[in-house]
Amino acid sequence: MIPVGVVMGSDSDFLVMEETLNILVYFDILYEVKVSSAHRTLERTLNWVRQFEDQGGKLIIAAAGLAAHLPGVIAGATILPVIGVPMRGGALEGVDALYSIVQMPPGIPVATVGIGAARNAGILAAQILAQDDQSLRQRLKNHRMKMAAEIEAKDGVIQDKLKKKL
Amino acid sequence: MIPVGVVMGSDSDFLVMEETLNILVYFDILYEVKVSSAHRTLERTLNWVRQFEDQGGKLIIAAAGLAAHLPGVIAGATILPVIGVPMRGGALEGVDALYSIVQMPPGIPVATVGIGAARNAGILAAQILAQDDQSLRQRLKNHRMKMAAEIEAKDGVIQDKLKKKL
Amino acid sequence: MIPVGVVMGSDSDFLVMEETLNILVYFDILYEVKVSSAHRTLERTLNWVRQFEDQGGKLIIAAAGLAAHLPGVIAGATILPVIGVPMRGGALEGVDALYSIVQMPPGIPVATVGIGAARNAGILAAQILAQDDQSLRQRLKNHRMKMAAEIEAKDGVIQDKLKKKL
Amino acid sequence: MIPVGVVMGSDSDFLVMEETLNILVYFDILYEVKVSSAHRTLERTLNWVRQFEDQGGKLIIAAAGLAAHLPGVIAGATILPVIGVPMRGGALEGVDALYSIVQMPPGIPVATVGIGAARNAGILAAQILAQDDQSLRQRLKNHRMKMAAEIEAKDGVIQDKLKKKL
Amino acid sequence: MIPVGVVMGSDSDFLVMEETLNILVYFDILYEVKVSSAHRTLERTLNWVRQFEDQGGKLIIAAAGLAAHLPGVIAGATILPVIGVPMRGGALEGVDALYSIVQMPPGIPVATVGIGAARNAGILAAQILAQDDQSLRQRLKNHRMKMAAEIEAKDGVIQDKLKKKL
Amino acid sequence: MIPVGVVMGSDSDFLVMEETLNILVYFDILYEVKVSSAHRTLERTLNWVRQFEDQGGKLIIAAAGLAAHLPGVIAGATILPVIGVPMRGGALEGVDALYSIVQMPPGIPVATVGIGAARNAGILAAQILAQDDQSLRQRLKNHRMKMAAEIEAKDGVIQDKLKKKL
Amino acid sequence: MIPVGVVMGSDSDFLVMEETLNILVYFDILYEVKVSSAHRTLERTLNWVRQFEDQGGKLIIAAAGLAAHLPGVIAGATILPVIGVPMRGGALEGVDALYSIVQMPPGIPVATVGIGAARNAGILAAQILAQDDQSLRQRLKNHRMKMAAEIEAKDGVIQDKLKKKL
Amino acid sequence: MIPVGVVMGSDSDFLVMEETLNILVYFDILYEVKVSSAHRTLERTLNWVRQFEDQGGKLIIAAAGLAAHLPGVIAGATILPVIGVPMRGGALEGVDALYSIVQMPPGIPVATVGIGAARNAGILAAQILAQDDQSLRQRLKNHRMKMAAEIEAKDGVIQDKLKKKL
Repeated sequence: MIPVGVVMGSDSDFLVMEETLNILVYFDILYEVKVSSAHRTLERTLNWVRQFEDQGGKLIIAAAGLAAHLPGVIAGATILPVIGVPMRGGALEGVDALYSIVQMPPGIPVATVGIGAARNAGILAAQILAQDDQSLRQRLKNHRMKMAAEIEAKDGVIQDKLKKKL
Repeated sequence: MIPVGVVMGSDSDFLVMEETLNILVYFDILYEVKVSSAHRTLERTLNWVRQFEDQGGKLIIAAAGLAAHLPGVIAGATILPVIGVPMRGGALEGVDALYSIVQMPPGIPVATVGIGAARNAGILAAQILAQDDQSLRQRLKNHRMKMAAEIEAKDGVIQDKLKKKL
Repeated sequence: MIPVGVVMGSDSDFLVMEETLNILVYFDILYEVKVSSAHRTLERTLNWVRQFEDQGGKLIIAAAGLAAHLPGVIAGATILPVIGVPMRGGALEGVDALYSIVQMPPGIPVATVGIGAARNAGILAAQILAQDDQSLRQRLKNHRMKMAAEIEAKDGVIQDKLKKKL
Repeated sequence: MIPVGVVMGSDSDFLVMEETLNILVYFDILYEVKVSSAHRTLERTLNWVRQFEDQGGKLIIAAAGLAAHLPGVIAGATILPVIGVPMRGGALEGVDALYSIVQMPPGIPVATVGIGAARNAGILAAQILAQDDQSLRQRLKNHRMKMAAEIEAKDGVIQDKLKKKL
Repeated sequence: MIPVGVVMGSDSDFLVMEETLNILVYFDILYEVKVSSAHRTLERTLNWVRQFEDQGGKLIIAAAGLAAHLPGVIAGATILPVIGVPMRGGALEGVDALYSIVQMPPGIPVATVGIGAARNAGILAAQILAQDDQSLRQRLKNHRMKMAAEIEAKDGVIQDKLKKKL
Repeated sequence: MIPVGVVMGSDSDFLVMEETLNILVYFDILYEVKVSSAHRTLERTLNWVRQFEDQGGKLIIAAAGLAAHLPGVIAGATILPVIGVPMRGGALEGVDALYSIVQMPPGIPVATVGIGAARNAGILAAQILAQDDQSLRQRLKNHRMKMAAEIEAKDGVIQDKLKKKL
Repeated sequence: MIPVGVVMGSDSDFLVMEETLNILVYFDILYEVKVSSAHRTLERTLNWVRQFEDQGGKLIIAAAGLAAHLPGVIAGATILPVIGVPMRGGALEGVDALYSIVQMPPGIPVATVGIGAARNAGILAAQILAQDDQSLRQRLKNHRMKMAAEIEAKDGVIQDKLKKKL
Repeated sequence: MIPVGVVMGSDSDFLVMEETLNILVYFDILYEVKVSSAHRTLERTLNWVRQFEDQGGKLIIAAAGLAAHLPGVIAGATILPVIGVPMRGGALEGVDALYSIVQMPPGIPVATVGIGAARNAGILAAQILAQDDQSLRQRLKNHRMKMAAEIEAKDGVIQDKLKKKL
């Protein structure tokens, strides 16, 4: 059983969404990836969603830019939680995608992360899956500690740099 | 054969979209109305689109607010021209709907009119249908003359008002 | 064990957030409510978060307006999923709150719903909790069917209204 | 008879608008191009519009940036459908052009596509012209299938890439 | 000879633009008013502009909302200075009109005042006309002194109110 | 007597504002330039304004970016018409400067041109000065004809390019 | 010696700015109020600023709406800290004022608070003045505790309300 | 005793914030720097704030981008004045950070400077600290005179350049 499906409307999104895949790997979470469109291959997208849900998938991460209908359309086709990632780009730099993903009508939410925040989409997925998985919870806590340690290390670097200046 | 289909995601849009219906009636254009959602009743929406196209429908007007996926999703399911009407409302007053409808990805356009511009959606539909319909062309030309006359009449009212002031 | 914690920075948010509570009741999900601030009672907020997590809480819904730091600050203090609800209001009508909640830095995501979308926050919570709860999944599916039926009913009302017009 | 007129206010728009011409060629649709301004050569623009309409033209695609009055001014001078393309550029990156094109007053619609969406303008033109042209309808359907196949092919490439990673 | 022409696209703008007329009266400047549209009565608008210029008109104030093409179109048809007044209204509250009026292409400027700033349009007109009119210059200086005196008077009222509080 | 004063808050604005100077030279209009700030050298700015007005100056062009107070502050210190040029730059790309220049309070207008529209500022100045200067009016009309001819020439280039393609 | 000067460009701002005065009274901080404009009474404003600084004033709070130059102009005329309050209102609801106040050029900062945040301006003033005033520091700490207690009390009210519901 | 603490959420902010440090050095003001996060190392941040305040710190400058909670969270933890610097970057170019920092709720102000305005943050700090420090006041006045002289020098350069042109 693969718990996370990562869908994107265009293979050009892959470069950004690899950050999602990397963080899922980091947390030892299996995923499958699907390139499929809400407009050009809607039936195929819907079929994949149903199949993914039937095979025991737990949540879907959907990335889209511009009008960015993909996360919302998928959210309408499943009761699995859908995490939406607005892609940066175009004249509006992703504000269009953000509004289109987050402003869903009553009844069909999409859990939206920041513009281009592929990494956070993966971490949110891990947090959702960790509910009944003590080991994943521990990995998340370790990750938090690692991030904290990194900041402390960076602080150290800055302190050293400032001392040398004097 | 009914040439125009008017779809809206919520019956609350009907009050605004009645302006579309009124202008279609004014131009003697038959229409059918469908309340159906891109998220809550997607299959039903897609079925209606296919049926409408099969029965010789010529174009679809789709109104939606907030994330406003309806026009784009319909545009992906038909090669008929789709006119999108961003509905005013919510915290963003329809800017979200405008971006979500107009910023469609390459390949699947939506002919977008102004925020809440239900009347213009109907006129645009008439203009598209008038291509090979001399009578409708004439009605459109008459409507233009009527609008021009209205402005001239209003100008007259203002001129009178200003004269009285002196 | 209470799975959902609903936090708001001000009791004035309660009127909107009651929609969240109502939908949680609808799905038979237990919740507790906390009025606490990210700035004025930060320690108290953090203590509540830790206690809620220790007692087996599963996820937190946090609502905030204006600078809207509450969801992000809570997200930094727990590995539970945090759903953020940007409250409408102020001169920027909630765009400030949306940006402040959704644009979290790498590492600490907040699952953001639309501006004022209190009901969707509750549904998203249900979807997240339904992962290993077949009964809740069924209730979510029923809710979807109910929403679909409502739209069909509304479509019927419109069709009747249009027939009477003729 | 040439069905499509493509107007732009500046020859600097030509580079982007070539995408429109390419897609029209792809669909075997004849076009003529006119560089003319809504402000600097208004009479000439209006004369061209009248002539184009008199010679049996079917629709006009008008591209403009910044204040972007060209599509609207043309729309006021003809009852042919006018497709407006907001050009990206300037300090506002085309948001000014989008608003100026889409927010037309009641009575004179412009069928607006996305910022810089020259290709979609051509496809929308094809969809409008296909109303009574079975052959063009078929070409549009083939184009849809081609786009779907492209996405499936891209999906295949990604699947291969992911397998190699393992 | 009437130096100032005040044009508006709709008689609904008259209520706001009366502020312009009042300030012109205050400065003893003659004006004529024209209700005419950039789209619905373009020829009539252009004819009026030419006639106004031929009869020795000195400058034109043009008010418009939404896509707000009127000031720019007039500016293209005359070398008289054109003052543009973006009207508040619609979903975008006049931001669309502001962008559409101020962001004119190189070669054809419009002297833009604030959203709904009808009074300032009249004062700007007076300042432009005052170039070679010592009497009008004096009236403008007197108006400045009057405004300054009003602020000082208001300051006095506030000082009194504050003293009473103590 | 020098009719036009061109003020900028920083010498870094000079590169853009040279376009203004060039167009003034083109129209044979004398100007003087002043680098002076609304905040860092306010008294000096005000002194220059008074001196410029006393020596028979006719209008002032003021360029500023970011908070962009310079045009408004000058407008408050003179009854000469002030043309404001919002400079592009900073994180907001000149939207801040546009709002700050155009949204002047009742009583003190600034004639605002587009973001970075230095050339239009010069043309607007020429239009204002042309009121009682038949020769300048003629030069403005010639400039219009030249711009129109340029567009026709560009149209010719495009037509040639398209013919070669066939 | 009066430490705080509160300046506003219009007496219509007084209603909002009374919140500032009330919080200053609450913290036992003396203030004087000045209604004076950056454009209509600039000299008078500058004179007041110099006089206020000479008499030992410690900081200035300046409120302004629309183009909102007042805080920045005052900041340029003194080295006292200037707190800027963007007033809500007009078509842009205070976004113009916010940008105009906060986006000051390098060298002349304005300490900006939120749109309409008159109360926070007063608190910030108290925080700045408390540097060397142990008693005021204590009052600020008490105020913090009072705010915290208020939230806890509101939480209690909500808990009671929820219990009654059950 | 070190009067100024400069906090940033990421060491990548250091490059920009060095401008703050340089201006503090210029004014002979001691500072300490802390790299610490509002989300990843909240406790550490709060501990530092308390320690800084206990050791007699006078004010804190906090820089943050994106959701930018750091300045607000610190402001909630101390009664020292907090100067917030919204960092430019991300898809929204710092508008998110600006809103998140300036739109603080009633009771907890942050003294916000412009997007990326690191230098102004340092000058504002100096202005706040100068209250009871005649020497620092003098340095601030000298800095103002230096800035004025720089503008006059730049004006001279431009005047020379223009003369050579003739």
